[in-house]
Amino acid sequence: VDDIRKRIESKLKERIEEYGKNVYPKLLDAMKYSLLAGGKRLRPLIVYNTGIELGISEEILINLGIAVEMIHTASLIHDDLPAIDDDDYRRGKPSCHRIFGEGMALVAGDGLILLSMKVLNDLEIEESTKLKLEMKLLESAGVNGMIGGEAEDIDMTGKYEKPDLERVLKMYERKTGALFSFSFSSPIICIGDEELENRMDEIGRKFGVAFQIYDDLKDLIGTFEEIGKTPRKDEVMDKPTVPRLVGVEKAREIANGIYEEAVELLKETGKFGKLVGFLRRVKEEIERR
Amino acid sequence: VDDIRKRIESKLKERIEEYGKNVYPKLLDAMKYSLLAGGKRLRPLIVYNTGIELGISEEILINLGIAVEMIHTASLIHDDLPAIDDDDYRRGKPSCHRIFGEGMALVAGDGLILLSMKVLNDLEIEESTKLKLEMKLLESAGVNGMIGGEAEDIDMTGKYEKPDLERVLKMYERKTGALFSFSFSSPIICIGDEELENRMDEIGRKFGVAFQIYDDLKDLIGTFEEIGKTPRKDEVMDKPTVPRLVGVEKAREIANGIYEEAVELLKETGKFGKLVGFLRRVKEEIERR
Repeated sequence: VDDIRKRIESKLKERIEEYGKNVYPKLLDAMKYSLLAGGKRLRPLIVYNTGIELGISEEILINLGIAVEMIHTASLIHDDLPAIDDDDYRRGKPSCHRIFGEGMALVAGDGLILLSMKVLNDLEIEESTKLKLEMKLLESAGVNGMIGGEAEDIDMTGKYEKPDLERVLKMYERKTGALFSFSFSSPIICIGDEELENRMDEIGRKFGVAFQIYDDLKDLIGTFEEIGKTPRKDEVMDKPTVPRLVGVEKAREIANGIYEEAVELLKETGKFGKLVGFLRRVKEEIERR
Repeated sequence: VDDIRKRIESKLKERIEEYGKNVYPKLLDAMKYSLLAGGKRLRPLIVYNTGIELGISEEILINLGIAVEMIHTASLIHDDLPAIDDDDYRRGKPSCHRIFGEGMALVAGDGLILLSMKVLNDLEIEESTKLKLEMKLLESAGVNGMIGGEAEDIDMTGKYEKPDLERVLKMYERKTGALFSFSFSSPIICIGDEELENRMDEIGRKFGVAFQIYDDLKDLIGTFEEIGKTPRKDEVMDKPTVPRLVGVEKAREIANGIYEEAVELLKETGKFGKLVGFLRRVKEEIERR
């Protein structure tokens, strides 16, 4: 995994330099600052581990991973802005707007959204496949996916009346699950198997919901050193999170249950041994913290 | 023109409702509020007037226009945020974030960027043409186009040292010209004539620069009733504008000169009589204010 992560990392650096050649220097710096801030590269690694067993070229898989990482980074930059979460730290470093100013951070996020689509448009694959991949990213990231979930999260924040658990889980499916579903299903689009694609979308949504709850738990019980950003921010902002609704123990139980469902569905496909192994290691790493 | 504008308007309404079917209601409301706030629809009208003489279907032209209008609206929503221009009014109404909050306005802009790409992805045309149109929009709107110019504008705002005129004009080419170049050249992509496409890009950039200077002049000498937003905002924000650098008379002279260059280049193609007529009327309307 570490070897692949390094290859993703260096290719990501290469691509942003390539796209940045004639870009206004401060804008490029702001995009690079957040893009290369040392994320776990979980989404690209899922793309890779899903696709490599299907015989898809590493070149294509890494580029799919770069596209999803760009749009993920854009959402982090925008989320950290005072307009949304007002977070001064991300991955242990000052957040993008703390270094480059709010305006520059805002357009850096916009720029990364558009670049992620450009990465797909530049893929060297069949045109019909490319258009399907673009559509999948647009749906996963867009108003029925990540952006939609984010909007609902913003709207539920700081409300006197607490939402019920079902509603929060549905919101997580969009906010976090949708982009994970792109990671799980985009390689399937390359081989053209719609039934499996739908199945992988479902697995991605489940994995994403579990992952979001683990993330909420980190916010609640982690230290700054452990999570790289201000802890207990969800409470300060009065955000609707699963642990805040049902408590730490119950939340962990729910997350574990959904995570196991995702892995079971994945095993049922009989195809993705490497990916199952990778997800197990992700889970172990989460538990170690 | 008024008849076409009405058709664009009603199709725009239709499409946003169609895409908004399962969208979180407040997010949809925020997008609709800004998208349907009664803009001049200048960019879609240029697409239409360019393409209709080439025999391209009205259906395709209106959808190209809707895509560019969505991304233009996204940029207005983001620009009005306190992170950038901090503008309370737009088109005579409170700006998006004044009604829906800053967080919701931010994601409404993100959502519209992604929707504009979806409009192109959904076009019913040849796949290779569709991919080229997407690429053109990504380049026009992206970090080498609109977003790049916006970033430079942000970075030059409030600086003690004044930039020179050449630099500001270059910045305008990206900030405003790039998206206009999509309006002028996207119909050409549909008929596949690269030389003409490049020529139209150039015309679009010139028209955009002239238009931006006319817009600066409105800010400087218009009243709230005339411009629908807080006047003299550029001065308050200390923005680098052409009239602030060279004065009102000289700025108008520069804008008129660039506008005439664009029209001359257009006439030289020997193809776009309707479009030339439309641009003349746009100019007259600008002068009447």
